[in-house]
Amino acid sequence: MERSELGILFLYVKGPVMADQSRTSSPLAHPTLEDIKRAANQIAGSVLRTPTLPAYKLSQALGADIFVKYDNMQITNAFKERGALVKLLSLNDEQRRAGVVAMSAGNHAQAVAFHASRLGIPSTIVMPEFTPFVKVAATKAFGADVILEGETVAEAGLAAQRLSETKGMVFVHPYDDFDIIRGQGTVALEMLADVGELDCLVVPIGGGGLISGMAIAAKTIKPTIEIIGVETELYPTMYNELKQTNLECGGQSLAEGIAVKKAGRLPASIAADLVSDIVLVSEGQIEQAINAFATHLKTMAEGAGAAGLAALIAEPGRFEGRKVGLLLSGGNIDPRLLSSIMVRQLGRKQQIVGLRITIPDRPGVLGEISTIIGDLGGNVLEVDHHRTFLNVPVKGASIDITIETRDAAHAQDIIRGIEAKGHKVEHLNASDGDGRQT
Amino acid sequence: MERSELGILFLYVKGPVMADQSRTSSPLAHPTLEDIKRAANQIAGSVLRTPTLPAYKLSQALGADIFVKYDNMQITNAFKERGALVKLLSLNDEQRRAGVVAMSAGNHAQAVAFHASRLGIPSTIVMPEFTPFVKVAATKAFGADVILEGETVAEAGLAAQRLSETKGMVFVHPYDDFDIIRGQGTVALEMLADVGELDCLVVPIGGGGLISGMAIAAKTIKPTIEIIGVETELYPTMYNELKQTNLECGGQSLAEGIAVKKAGRLPASIAADLVSDIVLVSEGQIEQAINAFATHLKTMAEGAGAAGLAALIAEPGRFEGRKVGLLLSGGNIDPRLLSSIMVRQLGRKQQIVGLRITIPDRPGVLGEISTIIGDLGGNVLEVDHHRTFLNVPVKGASIDITIETRDAAHAQDIIRGIEAKGHKVEHLNASDGDGRQT
Repeated sequence: MERSELGILFLYVKGPVMADQSRTSSPLAHPTLEDIKRAANQIAGSVLRTPTLPAYKLSQALGADIFVKYDNMQITNAFKERGALVKLLSLNDEQRRAGVVAMSAGNHAQAVAFHASRLGIPSTIVMPEFTPFVKVAATKAFGADVILEGETVAEAGLAAQRLSETKGMVFVHPYDDFDIIRGQGTVALEMLADVGELDCLVVPIGGGGLISGMAIAAKTIKPTIEIIGVETELYPTMYNELKQTNLECGGQSLAEGIAVKKAGRLPASIAADLVSDIVLVSEGQIEQAINAFATHLKTMAEGAGAAGLAALIAEPGRFEGRKVGLLLSGGNIDPRLLSSIMVRQLGRKQQIVGLRITIPDRPGVLGEISTIIGDLGGNVLEVDHHRTFLNVPVKGASIDITIETRDAAHAQDIIRGIEAKGHKVEHLNASDGDGRQT
Repeated sequence: MERSELGILFLYVKGPVMADQSRTSSPLAHPTLEDIKRAANQIAGSVLRTPTLPAYKLSQALGADIFVKYDNMQITNAFKERGALVKLLSLNDEQRRAGVVAMSAGNHAQAVAFHASRLGIPSTIVMPEFTPFVKVAATKAFGADVILEGETVAEAGLAAQRLSETKGMVFVHPYDDFDIIRGQGTVALEMLADVGELDCLVVPIGGGGLISGMAIAAKTIKPTIEIIGVETELYPTMYNELKQTNLECGGQSLAEGIAVKKAGRLPASIAADLVSDIVLVSEGQIEQAINAFATHLKTMAEGAGAAGLAALIAEPGRFEGRKVGLLLSGGNIDPRLLSSIMVRQLGRKQQIVGLRITIPDRPGVLGEISTIIGDLGGNVLEVDHHRTFLNVPVKGASIDITIETRDAAHAQDIIRGIEAKGHKVEHLNASDGDGRQT
């Protein structure tokens, strides 16, 4: 069925539209490549055409030929604008006047707020009560009314749906919607236009709107391309759908953008046809991926945005020697979180080393130890001197020294140098092996 | 004179070539647009074609129509590859076998090392003795021999020139070189190809190779375009050349990539013709610019790379309402430095607030204060409890509490709430006004 006919059908639907499939004759009609190409024309000039560039250092490190699509360079720093704008452009004049409502504590909120304001459509965003200040402020700054309601995302979602019903505002679903899906599909059009020879696309999955749109576009243009989804181990929702498993979903994830408990119906139906496999990644792998984007590509990825790279880190063998299209889907990471991830990673590589040294409590010892470190080429970053902890002998003291070193071997040299003077040294960040969070 | 003729001339020059102008009949022959276009063809496919994208949030904040050229997305994360590769491609077979030598503790080192290795040319990089481990390691990783020699950049430079003479290796100057300049000029070709309507280009100046190449390309294509250079207040070297002033140059700058004491002769001669003005920026403005790139554009700029944006922050009136092409020239910033800049900026906006509270040393007071903060919606990040400092009464104690707040007004509410319970509160990061480094 042509999408243009559905557009006409749409005018006759009464009351608030909860999810797009209610408009279609078949509730699970899938968008086509043509629908996605039309979306690309609709958003051209209003959503940035972001670059896809080869990632030399990542490719060297992981043994694949990696091309990164930087959708964190969008104005709201995530891909969500694509679908949100297509959805907003599908509204008729009456619906535009009534305004839209959405539930999101993240990128969908900013995407709807920004493009609704641009188009002169009133927008209301419902966020859970404990949403961080920064996200509330960013969404308000894009012109939305923000309502804080519900202790969880699910409760906030119900509140948003109630608002849609009582105020006659169209509810803009973040993923379970025909127009949202065809909007997100434009990411794949751009990637294949820039790098036609890709063997596979690696795409994060939250509710599934992104991967399902991208899969339709990519598999129709190039049927041999493989679509690999990525979820965090904590939220294997689409994995459960596709593999008929029943793994538990829950917990605090670094990738809160894909911490979704229930996959969308329409996305799941598309993914079942077109997605080859789903890689589950650990929180530690997501952390490593965020750090790798910052270190090698000088770009900021939020946890969900880094999930694709985490999959390459998790299973390098799967991608070895292949041309991989890796979507960096969003960059909205808290600066403090990014800071601590980058510094922790230096600690893992033992380029920053914390030593706890037990020393006799007499003058001159701190000077003696500092001199050893300096002579061996270490750079002292921080010193913390304790006398009161119970694990220190009464006549002793303990010093925590943070040192910048070349690498683990250099750190060992320095430790041995201090021990040679008769002090007991405890290495506070000895390698934790697999790079997982501790 | 056609550049190809110079190429032939070149073959007859004996011994190491110290700077390219020694090859030309006129020592200060300027490259032409044609020379730069030829450079673009030479580097195509080996140096990335980086994007130029509109920067919506920066444009809103600064009142100009800003387009950012992301040359921090190059493989070595800076523009330096362009000139280095053009220079390397200008060598004849004998010179390639003899290898090249360069002096740099930064981006030029990695650029020469990377492309020399790609082309099978041996490269030696001389760095000052106290160059950070990370930079030495990165340069070695790209395949160069690294020699640590000299206490200053100037001494390292002399050592590199000696090597060039004794070993017959071509010295690759970082900026005072015809080929380097025409290579760097390709940045402007790409910017104008992507956004033809630019009114001005804002370009950081170190030795001047970048701005002089860009100015030739841009002013020849579009004579009405204005070229604005940027230097840090600490190193107004090209400013001194162009304005015939004698401002002092020296000190520790965040922008070490442009902390150059002497402008190049050839670049200065070109800049005198084509650069409209030079903006001097403070260290605080560079810090703000680094933070703005991270916060709004999710991209990492080193100090020198952020200098252009610092100029827009320093003099917004100069750019108001104009279409500004802003070059983000490099992204190699130490993760720990970036971390501390981002966190300090949250402190400036009082979204992170440090309070030192003097309290009676009795049980329960910490709980009382934490409850006040929580009730007022503040989020406690860190607590540090002191009893031993001399500025605390013998029977008292002091607590340092770090709190996340919405903004300055919210911070004030919390301070008043604690004071209302009779405690003395010192605000450790009350705004320092102009955002300068403290």
